[in-house]
Amino acid sequence: MKVRIHVSLKPGVLDPQGRAVHHALEGLGFTGVEDVRVGRLIELDVADGTSEDDIAQMCEKLLANTVIENYRIETTEAPKE
Amino acid sequence: MKVRIHVSLKPGVLDPQGRAVHHALEGLGFTGVEDVRVGRLIELDVADGTSEDDIAQMCEKLLANTVIENYRIETTEAPKE
Repeated sequence: MKVRIHVSLKPGVLDPQGRAVHHALEGLGFTGVEDVRVGRLIELDVADGTSEDDIAQMCEKLLANTVIENYRIETTEAPKE
Repeated sequence: MKVRIHVSLKPGVLDPQGRAVHHALEGLGFTGVEDVRVGRLIELDVADGTSEDDIAQMCEKLLANTVIENYRIETTEAPKE
């Protein structure tokens, strides 16, 4: 079973990486970019029986720093071979 | 206009970060994890008139290393304030 986890900084948390990307885009001549936020996209391939709670535990314990980050779990059914 | 860009390594490209996360998950006692791939999730806030082609140019020139990475553009309409 394929699971995709979107980890992004909580609103209000300073994002230096996003700011650097923003400046670089402007330096390349791209106008009209108002804000850039950079997060992580973690794709897990887990056994079919894995519960959403197990995955939430993985996020809480390791994949996201819940003090400054939010995470969103998206399960995508694996195509049956 | 909010745009979300999913950047992930091309299949077959070694993902040391994903491998490290995989080992850490196993070390925490999570069984059933077969594979982990870590990518980037870039959230852009751009002016409403920005075309998909402009965004693709941003990806090609800066946001993704197209030699080893794939990118997928997802436009999410900004809620009218």
